[in-house]
Amino acid sequence: MAAFRFEDLHRLALEVFMAIGCPPDQARTAADTLLSADLRGVDSHGVARLSGYVRLWENGRINPRPGIRVTYETPSTAVVDGDGGLGLVVAPFAMEVAIAKATQAGTGWVSTRNSNHYGIAGYHAMQAIPHNMIGMSMTNASPLVAPTFSVERLLGTNPIAVAIPAGEEPPFVADLATTTAANGKLEILQRKRAEAPLGWIQDAAGQPTTDPTATTRGGALLPLGGDREHGSHKGYALGAVVDIFSAILSGANYGPWVPPFVAFLPVAPNLPGKGIGHFFGAMRIDAFRPADEFKQHMDQWIRRFRSAKPVEGQERVLIPGDPEREFETVRRLEGIPLVDAVVSDLMELAARFGVTPIAAV
Amino acid sequence: MAAFRFEDLHRLALEVFMAIGCPPDQARTAADTLLSADLRGVDSHGVARLSGYVRLWENGRINPRPGIRVTYETPSTAVVDGDGGLGLVVAPFAMEVAIAKATQAGTGWVSTRNSNHYGIAGYHAMQAIPHNMIGMSMTNASPLVAPTFSVERLLGTNPIAVAIPAGEEPPFVADLATTTAANGKLEILQRKRAEAPLGWIQDAAGQPTTDPTATTRGGALLPLGGDREHGSHKGYALGAVVDIFSAILSGANYGPWVPPFVAFLPVAPNLPGKGIGHFFGAMRIDAFRPADEFKQHMDQWIRRFRSAKPVEGQERVLIPGDPEREFETVRRLEGIPLVDAVVSDLMELAARFGVTPIAAV
Repeated sequence: MAAFRFEDLHRLALEVFMAIGCPPDQARTAADTLLSADLRGVDSHGVARLSGYVRLWENGRINPRPGIRVTYETPSTAVVDGDGGLGLVVAPFAMEVAIAKATQAGTGWVSTRNSNHYGIAGYHAMQAIPHNMIGMSMTNASPLVAPTFSVERLLGTNPIAVAIPAGEEPPFVADLATTTAANGKLEILQRKRAEAPLGWIQDAAGQPTTDPTATTRGGALLPLGGDREHGSHKGYALGAVVDIFSAILSGANYGPWVPPFVAFLPVAPNLPGKGIGHFFGAMRIDAFRPADEFKQHMDQWIRRFRSAKPVEGQERVLIPGDPEREFETVRRLEGIPLVDAVVSDLMELAARFGVTPIAAV
Repeated sequence: MAAFRFEDLHRLALEVFMAIGCPPDQARTAADTLLSADLRGVDSHGVARLSGYVRLWENGRINPRPGIRVTYETPSTAVVDGDGGLGLVVAPFAMEVAIAKATQAGTGWVSTRNSNHYGIAGYHAMQAIPHNMIGMSMTNASPLVAPTFSVERLLGTNPIAVAIPAGEEPPFVADLATTTAANGKLEILQRKRAEAPLGWIQDAAGQPTTDPTATTRGGALLPLGGDREHGSHKGYALGAVVDIFSAILSGANYGPWVPPFVAFLPVAPNLPGKGIGHFFGAMRIDAFRPADEFKQHMDQWIRRFRSAKPVEGQERVLIPGDPEREFETVRRLEGIPLVDAVVSDLMELAARFGVTPIAAV
């Protein structure tokens, strides 16, 4: 597995987005958003998906020059229509609207329709941090998840991200799929032909299975909790809230009608809405209390949890965001490792669009 | 196990709250909030706790005549100080503030300090429904939960509730502890001397155990997910967000410093804040889109999920809020079943405060 410099991968993504017709500023935003996943160690959501976005564009399912706009607003809310643009571009626009609302009204909440896959949820939530705000981000996604007791797949992995500023400590950044395991982890097991732990997936009949390929034959990912006895109804409820905030508030598609990310799967007929949906929030800290007081207490919170006595065999208790930040430090220095299949995918894109190919570090 | 009429239990609670000095309107609010748990089948949070509140009052840890007030506000936010009052009264006050903010600014978000146990999270979220708003409610709680990899108990069961109006269908009401299992379920197993499923608790060394009494000897409840492989870091992150929104935004106590509900446990020294914290939200539906459009889509969402093909052996796929609503229908008709220990507890309270005792139906 070769490693590649962040700057090289960023340039490649930028040029490919421009090649499919994105204006330069939007192409840059898209590359920033996409590459944040590779930096933070979420390999399934980074450049590995670049060819997937291109295929969606080929299928006419991405508008490279969208007129993204606010269609409705109140002092603390807005609805954004992404005009079929890349979620990688629509989401940062909508998050900016949330931040602007919060600057005026204390908080800002933006539901977004007519969008597409938006990369990692955490990236958008983190945009609030430099503004001394708490950021939130969620999105619905292609139906891969079976609600508790359901054979059918009705929800996406529907992530929730919350980014909270601290003082001397780095920010708290939670970014979690509302499933037991993210789809990316399953794909790794499929490649390795390894077994999945019980509680991650069910087969086409809705029975527990350890076969990671079951999801390719009518099986489903399971909501966080895994089964009823371990609280899967809670993961299901959280995923449902994400779906409703993202899509029913905005007028996007929801539940089983969410258009699939992969271009070879057909879009369901009689869609109830437009594209996929996201939901963003920003809360000014000083809309509640002075920011320095809040940050002092966040520092105390973080230090107390990080210094908790760990279970034998574990080094320490982690703060949400710690693992991703450590990935970023290493990868900015040593490069981003890519599996061969992704490298040849990117080489093909470079050849096809006549942009400079990448070279391993 | 005898059953008791809702009205009788409500009257008893009301009279006991008045006997400890609550003004009549606050006593009524407290009884409404408390009894909503019994109606909805959350037996651990209803009249079974009445004597617990009385013991906190005896210990000077409840102010029966609090001056609950807004201490800070912006157009869409407020901080409420509960003045040490019953959470059962402080929370409805704060939720009203959130609803009033939403009426003006589109959404309202209220962080609350200096409060106490507030009953079931779902009750407060549901207050938004008649206003055509989405309601949210969360609270921190006594430290019983070990973050992933931690031996120490640093978080409460920190529930999240979200109530969403529908049209012809009943509302969607998610109400979930951010742990695999609520403490109430563990107490049932302790009484029955039955084993707990793996993934609910760990022992004092942080190792998995099925012994439900482990939490009384230094063990801990586990975050939703159970262990790292099944996503416990996600349940931990969600519980942490609840703690921070409820207590660090408001200036309440957080993490291991949250005062315990049971009066015989000492309060930690050097508290960083005041009382326990809650967080409430209200979002006007028509701050996003016309309410009737939203409700039509909610109805479609609910019907699609409820009619999903169930796994063999299961009757149907449930919508969050279905089980609690069914409990309420039955219990309003047939009464609320109480275990003998709770009945004698209530009889003692009645005798002590000279109020009319309850009689089984």
